[in-house]
Amino acid sequence: MKYTVLGTGAIGGYYGGMLRKSGLPVDFLARSDYQYIKEHGLMIDSIKGDFILRELDVYDSVENLPDTDVVIVSMKTTANENLSELLLPIVKEGTVIFVLQNGLGMEEELQKQFPHAVVIGGMCFICSQKRGPGYIVHLDKGPITAAPLHESDFPIAEKLRSDFVQAGIEMTLSRNLKHARWGKLLWNIPFNGLSVVLNANTKEIMDNPYGLSLAQRLMEEVSRGASACGCNLPSGSIAGMLESTQTMAPYDPSMKLDYDHRRPMEVEYMYRKPLQEARKNGADLPLVAALADQLSFLNQMVEVSV
Amino acid sequence: MKYTVLGTGAIGGYYGGMLRKSGLPVDFLARSDYQYIKEHGLMIDSIKGDFILRELDVYDSVENLPDTDVVIVSMKTTANENLSELLLPIVKEGTVIFVLQNGLGMEEELQKQFPHAVVIGGMCFICSQKRGPGYIVHLDKGPITAAPLHESDFPIAEKLRSDFVQAGIEMTLSRNLKHARWGKLLWNIPFNGLSVVLNANTKEIMDNPYGLSLAQRLMEEVSRGASACGCNLPSGSIAGMLESTQTMAPYDPSMKLDYDHRRPMEVEYMYRKPLQEARKNGADLPLVAALADQLSFLNQMVEVSV
Repeated sequence: MKYTVLGTGAIGGYYGGMLRKSGLPVDFLARSDYQYIKEHGLMIDSIKGDFILRELDVYDSVENLPDTDVVIVSMKTTANENLSELLLPIVKEGTVIFVLQNGLGMEEELQKQFPHAVVIGGMCFICSQKRGPGYIVHLDKGPITAAPLHESDFPIAEKLRSDFVQAGIEMTLSRNLKHARWGKLLWNIPFNGLSVVLNANTKEIMDNPYGLSLAQRLMEEVSRGASACGCNLPSGSIAGMLESTQTMAPYDPSMKLDYDHRRPMEVEYMYRKPLQEARKNGADLPLVAALADQLSFLNQMVEVSV
Repeated sequence: MKYTVLGTGAIGGYYGGMLRKSGLPVDFLARSDYQYIKEHGLMIDSIKGDFILRELDVYDSVENLPDTDVVIVSMKTTANENLSELLLPIVKEGTVIFVLQNGLGMEEELQKQFPHAVVIGGMCFICSQKRGPGYIVHLDKGPITAAPLHESDFPIAEKLRSDFVQAGIEMTLSRNLKHARWGKLLWNIPFNGLSVVLNANTKEIMDNPYGLSLAQRLMEEVSRGASACGCNLPSGSIAGMLESTQTMAPYDPSMKLDYDHRRPMEVEYMYRKPLQEARKNGADLPLVAALADQLSFLNQMVEVSV
């Protein structure tokens, strides 16, 4: 299939770069970094091996993007307000929209806006960072769990998977997107938020009894929210994720990088939507809500001062 | 009565200075600031009128302190571990220990250590800061609520009050120390902790919908904790305190100054003791506990890095 990557950052740059390296046709949309990437290409320092992609098919506006089979949405959800505008010129009937974002509810929104598209969600379990224009560092992990919004699109997800796998990307398929999304939130909600308010990386949080306990209590609430929404996460999910975080290289989650660089944080899709879904299903998550409010406060303070 | 001030900072410097200015005999203990105060005196910039006290009776060690009637304890509770050692040379039978600290349980501990002393707690509703050695700035408010640990000592509290009032300090007496302590915690718990984790002053918290809502939810928990401990705070306490905070000049609570200056924060007496008391009486306060854990985390990170 032919791929188009919207957002050549930590996620789109890495996965798109891997697909491109494997020989697949991949177009990249880059805005602020367009000129730099056009001239210097895309440099990826990865624990799996560094590589540079020169002569990239990079575009600075969606209007100029050629036709495509799969659009990889790898911008931050803070830009989702304008996402449908971006997608309009390139999404046709049957185009796959592969959403590599964190949070909840993005796929449902996109399906509403593009009823004839195939919407697939992707949960990336990866530590990667954009360190400069066209410069991505892949620090740890890498697997993606992908799930179509509609189970009937599972065969298309399988095609997607075979492309990713031949490009060296581990991909697991799930038939239950909502379940997979909550499973990812189990990590994102505690570690993204705590890394910001505690000004700490994952190792500092894990190594401190108060940090660890806060993470655990938040995870228990997320798990309770998931259950209320009909997604019983497997017993041992919390323990397993904590163990996996423990063995991971010290990592600043994306939200911490956003805050440190005075960019808006993804509070809406990563916290507000899950809180709303849980609430709608009768579950209040007071600690998650308090953390979300702390992050919203900090978001607004940055906004005022920028 | 003759006074001795332990801790010539924002609280002890201001109130002790006022007592001294009114003509009462006041001895001051100062440690790091001893030499400076000895030479330059104590400078107080106050909304009620600036003044300088030269030729202060200042001492650098408790061993040298003359006899006294009232010991004003105005050091931070982070130093309470060593407080009984400090008090030992000057507390005799009947000596009044007047505890101008924030938190819960300090008076009970002191009474155990000094069974023949008269222990009185004081809740200072004041915005004051130590800006340098011997330099105190009184920004807003000023009243003290005082309550003896044992109601039988109420007449002594009345004597204390008459000294403070003639020195121009507003003082209200209460017959229920625990109740008064919880009443003060209603402000201290939300605003001290939030000012640290949100890196914000009182006005920034109050003016932001998320900040205000967090403060309110924390206050509701504190109020619930107080009730569980048999201290029903008057209805309207929360609203009243929010209104009073609203009209107050923008203020960095003491805990924020401590954190910003990489000093230990008063988590133990301001958060842990109230949480323990509430817990003992069947009330869990999850938001207060989460905030306390965030502060303990930050305390430990500072400790590691200092």
